[in-house]
Amino acid sequence: MKRAVVLLSGGMDSAVTLALARRQGFACHALSLAYGQRHASELQAAARVAAMLGAVEHKIVDVDLRGIGGSALTADIEVPPHDRAHPADEIPATYVPARNTIMLSLALGWAEVLGADGIWCGVNAVDYSGYPDCRPAFVDAFERLANVATRAGTQGHRLHVHAPLMRMSKADIVREGVALGLDFSATVSCYRADAEGRACGRCDACALRARGFADANVPDPTRYA
Amino acid sequence: MKRAVVLLSGGMDSAVTLALARRQGFACHALSLAYGQRHASELQAAARVAAMLGAVEHKIVDVDLRGIGGSALTADIEVPPHDRAHPADEIPATYVPARNTIMLSLALGWAEVLGADGIWCGVNAVDYSGYPDCRPAFVDAFERLANVATRAGTQGHRLHVHAPLMRMSKADIVREGVALGLDFSATVSCYRADAEGRACGRCDACALRARGFADANVPDPTRYA
Repeated sequence: MKRAVVLLSGGMDSAVTLALARRQGFACHALSLAYGQRHASELQAAARVAAMLGAVEHKIVDVDLRGIGGSALTADIEVPPHDRAHPADEIPATYVPARNTIMLSLALGWAEVLGADGIWCGVNAVDYSGYPDCRPAFVDAFERLANVATRAGTQGHRLHVHAPLMRMSKADIVREGVALGLDFSATVSCYRADAEGRACGRCDACALRARGFADANVPDPTRYA
Repeated sequence: MKRAVVLLSGGMDSAVTLALARRQGFACHALSLAYGQRHASELQAAARVAAMLGAVEHKIVDVDLRGIGGSALTADIEVPPHDRAHPADEIPATYVPARNTIMLSLALGWAEVLGADGIWCGVNAVDYSGYPDCRPAFVDAFERLANVATRAGTQGHRLHVHAPLMRMSKADIVREGVALGLDFSATVSCYRADAEGRACGRCDACALRARGFADANVPDPTRYA
């Protein structure tokens, strides 16, 4: 059985990604990053999702990004409420510097240890928050790096980085998850979720998620505070 | 004053790299990774070197790579003694999967927060231990990634990844350090250094280091256990 390392945040996108990797028959090793984020309830959601979708195992790697700072998610900056007038070309305060690069690097290390065929991540360039590390050019550059950085890559065992949601709208992602039988109530997307995983309903992540369910005509199972 | 993030392991290569960045006039922010490595005395050496060479600050980021495993440096695998018959195309057991990718990713995040112009690292493709992530193709691929992964890169502020030792022999590195007035006795290269930073004299890192001093005709200041 082929192995995959799947980055799992606890949010809806990575849950759908894991379900897709499972459907393709991969033995899935789920990886979450504890980076001093405020929304620690996402990690509990990640553990629920990993178990629910039959991941072989779920690892949480601690990386204290607070020392590096620079984001509303890791430093003492207020998470801004969602603003529909927010210019599309501006990168918001919740952007964690190099977060996806760091997460994929850790996934790469584990993939190499496992002899995995690929890394799966839920990055998405359509309904995303304007982060530079959520675009096809980023994923392509990382895959290229992965294949010169590792023993596997240099020995001809090509490693693939899959981002199956890249060109899907949030509504598409909701529909895909429903088709896969995914229980979205297990997922937490909110940047300011409380200790029970209840969403604030006001941040960017909440707004994108709610619009996804509305656009897909699927009842929103999100628990709000 | 231009800023640089300099990866500092505590070994001789990264110390020379920091000295070179300082000589080029950069305000240097030194970064070390605590990845559950056995040779924790390297981190103490890194702190000494950062202070000695006038780094603006020195940060240690904790990343527990033991969960991922797969290396003699992070897992319970015996560090092999140096073997001169060791085939050059074989990657040794001390290789930490994706280590340089992970370190550069963290440096990238910090570089972005600081608005730094570059990341400096001491990787070297000549007298190295056969690691895939110590080659020019790796550094080039990472620089390319860095410039699509970050806010700075996508806004035209090009970030450079400097590996000034890439094509230097260990003897060249020793000579460069001597020319820069570096006190090598502050550095620790050994994979199995004891709590006082004394070297084993038997591992790959010790063998490469000792040969560098011998080839450069420079007295070896290394403290052996």
